[in-house]
Amino acid sequence: MALLVQKFGGTSVGTTERIEAVADKVCRFRNEGHDVVVVVSAMSGETNRLIGLASAIMEEPTPREMDVLVSTGEQVTIALLSMALQKRGCDARSYTGSQVRILTDSTHTKARIRQIDEQRMREDLDAGRVVVVAGFQGIDESGNITTLGRGGSDTTAVALAAALKADECQIYTDVDGVYTTDPRVVDSARRLDRITFEEMIEMASLGSKVLQIRSVEFAGKYNVPLRVLSSFQDGGGTLITFEDDEAMEQPVVSGIAFNRDEAKLTIAGVPDTPGSALSILKPISEANIEVDMIVQNVGADNRTDFTFTVHRNDFNRARDVLTKVSNDLGAREVSGDNKIAKVSIVGVGMRSHAGVATTMFEALSHEGINIQMISTSEIKISVVIDEKYLELAVRALHSAFDLDKAEGEA
Amino acid sequence: MALLVQKFGGTSVGTTERIEAVADKVCRFRNEGHDVVVVVSAMSGETNRLIGLASAIMEEPTPREMDVLVSTGEQVTIALLSMALQKRGCDARSYTGSQVRILTDSTHTKARIRQIDEQRMREDLDAGRVVVVAGFQGIDESGNITTLGRGGSDTTAVALAAALKADECQIYTDVDGVYTTDPRVVDSARRLDRITFEEMIEMASLGSKVLQIRSVEFAGKYNVPLRVLSSFQDGGGTLITFEDDEAMEQPVVSGIAFNRDEAKLTIAGVPDTPGSALSILKPISEANIEVDMIVQNVGADNRTDFTFTVHRNDFNRARDVLTKVSNDLGAREVSGDNKIAKVSIVGVGMRSHAGVATTMFEALSHEGINIQMISTSEIKISVVIDEKYLELAVRALHSAFDLDKAEGEA
Repeated sequence: MALLVQKFGGTSVGTTERIEAVADKVCRFRNEGHDVVVVVSAMSGETNRLIGLASAIMEEPTPREMDVLVSTGEQVTIALLSMALQKRGCDARSYTGSQVRILTDSTHTKARIRQIDEQRMREDLDAGRVVVVAGFQGIDESGNITTLGRGGSDTTAVALAAALKADECQIYTDVDGVYTTDPRVVDSARRLDRITFEEMIEMASLGSKVLQIRSVEFAGKYNVPLRVLSSFQDGGGTLITFEDDEAMEQPVVSGIAFNRDEAKLTIAGVPDTPGSALSILKPISEANIEVDMIVQNVGADNRTDFTFTVHRNDFNRARDVLTKVSNDLGAREVSGDNKIAKVSIVGVGMRSHAGVATTMFEALSHEGINIQMISTSEIKISVVIDEKYLELAVRALHSAFDLDKAEGEA
Repeated sequence: MALLVQKFGGTSVGTTERIEAVADKVCRFRNEGHDVVVVVSAMSGETNRLIGLASAIMEEPTPREMDVLVSTGEQVTIALLSMALQKRGCDARSYTGSQVRILTDSTHTKARIRQIDEQRMREDLDAGRVVVVAGFQGIDESGNITTLGRGGSDTTAVALAAALKADECQIYTDVDGVYTTDPRVVDSARRLDRITFEEMIEMASLGSKVLQIRSVEFAGKYNVPLRVLSSFQDGGGTLITFEDDEAMEQPVVSGIAFNRDEAKLTIAGVPDTPGSALSILKPISEANIEVDMIVQNVGADNRTDFTFTVHRNDFNRARDVLTKVSNDLGAREVSGDNKIAKVSIVGVGMRSHAGVATTMFEALSHEGINIQMISTSEIKISVVIDEKYLELAVRALHSAFDLDKAEGEA
């Protein structure tokens, strides 16, 4: 008898047939005696259809009206899913973000949740009803409709779970859990039964796009156990949870993440004076270019080489900015490479294990892969390598850290 | 500097191009210095699309969820129209029925408006904004989304005009006003500049489907001057207003209405005892068949003939009910005719003019048209005739009452 918040994304509710399949699944949980709150996205394609209508009228539609428009997408889904549940004899009631009173700030198209009034949902649950809530949307203090931006429905689900102190927040997607790495790259990639919030955040930010990082952070902050499962096949999925001191020893490395979308820029022979890093990065940031890894080495003659990575789409723009900076600073030269990739090992076990970096570098060296940049955090080591070695590197690391083997087997 | 409420139906906002045309029109009024509140329906086809989704899931969808679903249609239009207005430099803000707080009862799919909070609209108007409101929808006291049923957007417009004490409520449709009769039947049919509420209600209930009768009654009750105009061509339309004692003499007859969808049933030789009418009509009403005209004549031998009309679709069902009634009452026979039509002359001037009926019967007789039933009210005379004479009758009456001539010319 648990209280579950279940979230189904656009693909899972993409047709009326799929909505009926979701209703079957939800009813099964309800019939087992669980209390269920369901959060749904717009039917896949619907949000794009609505954006298309807006673009036909206005190049840059006003954010307030954009929110009024696109929030209809989830409203359609909550009504249809409630009908499908009722048809199965499963009493249900739908709520828009405004009705459940998901109070947000007024930042249209990317609002942040401030408060949720769980009273009404609680009454419905007590009356034996399934509560169906529109994801992605809320209302500000003046009653304006807001939306939460990318991944907003996941955030809604986590926020409802936190407000209701749910036993679990289940995110149904088109994959059946979080893997040790991308199964398309490594055949022997394995679904993890558990992963910690910190690891999940590092994995997500490094390009494992199972969950939006924002909802993971949110779940971690509010102690909401989060589970990723498949809408289309049965299985336990992956539970994202807190580090469990009493659990058997953590694996040193939980997963291998990677990102192909990076490019590297170097400004060499910069006079090494206080403030030189600022002089380089400020113009980049002012051009709205996000910087990922940063590495600086002191060289000879009081000059330094400064290297950083940006999204590959920003490569040309960043190089132009940097060339100007180089002239201003009297640096020697600007060089760049947009054929690089980033590979990272992630695991909370690293904290208590020495020699993890050595194992990593050894495995790469053994395959003849040159490391161009290194960056570390407490539970992650990232390296930049030539893009052409990406798959080879991921496979080598997956094997070097025994991720091919079932948990407990290593 | 008037305060106008303008309503545009589904055809008028059926595409983004048409929404832009509506925005042009609204901006023009705004630029002339008028305060404008716009009420819109769902884009034509959208409501049917949504109903189709619901039917794919459930044969008889629950009314509450149906309202959640179909109310998204108008919400899309208010956002798009607001964008189109903003693009033209015309500041605008959209409101759903729930946001403007159109409070209704809880009769889902055909709710009735109880109260409107005009404060927020007033603030926007004072700030120079056009207010764009979703028609057809409201919210009940518990915050559930409701819809107003057929013609609901017209009702929304009239209710807003009443709450705001607007100078005029303008209903934009695909016709350019109210005509003396259907121009497809009489070439010389003429657009009326004015018509009274009472006449309009008789015309509407007799099959002139320019406006939903409910919104006309509502406008009459709350003293809201109502104007019917074309979305697609310029012109003053028809003003529906109160009888003006000071105006020049009213025309005796304002228009000729007609209805082809009727059928006639007679039960003959009914023993003429108190309660016989009730014995006949109660079973009909219990079968959910609506009765229109009723005529009873006392015959010989304390027996009476009883005739009434029903919608043509109900003809067979009504005859079956009546046959059973006839046996129970010991009546002589049941007969019927579903090839009849009703033609009516409507005009407030009738009240002060004798001889109107004579003129009507003379005109029909002159064309050799037999009158099968007659029914009269204070401002209307209806006759039932053989369906095949319908067009001939309408033309004869249109001419007999000088409706071909311009106003004041008669």
